[in-house]
Amino acid sequence: MASKDSKPEALPDSAKDRILEAAIALLRQAGLAGAGVNQILALSRTPKGSLYHYFPGGKEQIIQEALTLYATRVAKAFEHVLSGQQAPADKVRALFRFVADRFEDASFERSCAVGAVVLDLDAESAVLRAAAAAAFDAWRSVIARHLEAMGAAQSKALAGVMLSTIEGAYVRGRAERSGQAFIEAGEMLATLVRRLDGGTPAGR
Amino acid sequence: MASKDSKPEALPDSAKDRILEAAIALLRQAGLAGAGVNQILALSRTPKGSLYHYFPGGKEQIIQEALTLYATRVAKAFEHVLSGQQAPADKVRALFRFVADRFEDASFERSCAVGAVVLDLDAESAVLRAAAAAAFDAWRSVIARHLEAMGAAQSKALAGVMLSTIEGAYVRGRAERSGQAFIEAGEMLATLVRRLDGGTPAGR
Repeated sequence: MASKDSKPEALPDSAKDRILEAAIALLRQAGLAGAGVNQILALSRTPKGSLYHYFPGGKEQIIQEALTLYATRVAKAFEHVLSGQQAPADKVRALFRFVADRFEDASFERSCAVGAVVLDLDAESAVLRAAAAAAFDAWRSVIARHLEAMGAAQSKALAGVMLSTIEGAYVRGRAERSGQAFIEAGEMLATLVRRLDGGTPAGR
Repeated sequence: MASKDSKPEALPDSAKDRILEAAIALLRQAGLAGAGVNQILALSRTPKGSLYHYFPGGKEQIIQEALTLYATRVAKAFEHVLSGQQAPADKVRALFRFVADRFEDASFERSCAVGAVVLDLDAESAVLRAAAAAAFDAWRSVIARHLEAMGAAQSKALAGVMLSTIEGAYVRGRAERSGQAFIEAGEMLATLVRRLDGGTPAGR
């Protein structure tokens, strides 16, 4: 979509954005292996020159920035969903339902971009590993803050388990072509939260 | 390791085994992308002729058989660990501890082979997707059977959540270079099981 008469260095910001969006989409679909430079170029419809203009570090830099952008976006979405509920158990259920719905909308073919990258990492990819760890830390903090009425230690532990379970439900969901793993986990962890929160045992 | 004077079709079974073991190791380390034919050949020290002798279907067939072998092995290990405990909550904690220990032994660099494959799958890899779904189904059944004192529906749901959480703890653990996500989840889900099982509220 880049106009042919513009100099490469004068390409609109949207070229950079298109590259990052293409990287995110490819990562979610097929992991680090599916997000090669040629595939990113094809999907983003940008010339190779723009890619190396905006990302002199090549694929690693693109993936790193894509993960950071994706992490911010997901944190905002989590914040929005969690803010829509009052009771901790309702927040838990709503978050799993939200992720399940998005997964189903993508025909069970788009996982978490961060999760897809980390399982493909060779030991040497320290930059991408750090970007992934930062994403998980940010998401966990958002969730924990919404559960803080349950106490600092408990809210942090619960947020960690929720995050692990979401990442794993993507894994199972891709194999099973179903969002059931999210729904099942949302119900079970909402029950746990109600019990820990002093809710009635019959309230599951 | 194959002896040079044997005919290709008379290679010992161990050549086939070496190929499958190499594939499993590579998948656990770097996903489907890291388990290319050339990498499998190098790690297994088998000539290309043996590879296509045993696996005429090439990479897809190798990965499929590797996942099936890995699934059987993990199911047996889960069975062994779960059988070592009596109370459901102890079974839960023991399983997460077992996976965490193995993950730590591998310097936090070996995930679940099945999980690593599914996030890399393009939509067309139906054979591998089915192998992954079969693995998850088998593991879930092993876990559910050990929790069946809690009732059929509840044991199945709990087993599903445990499996999702294990897969997700691998994802987080790779990024965080830590087995903490397993330990944290084991404690939290053991608490849930105790509460659902009618244990005392103070017993967490």
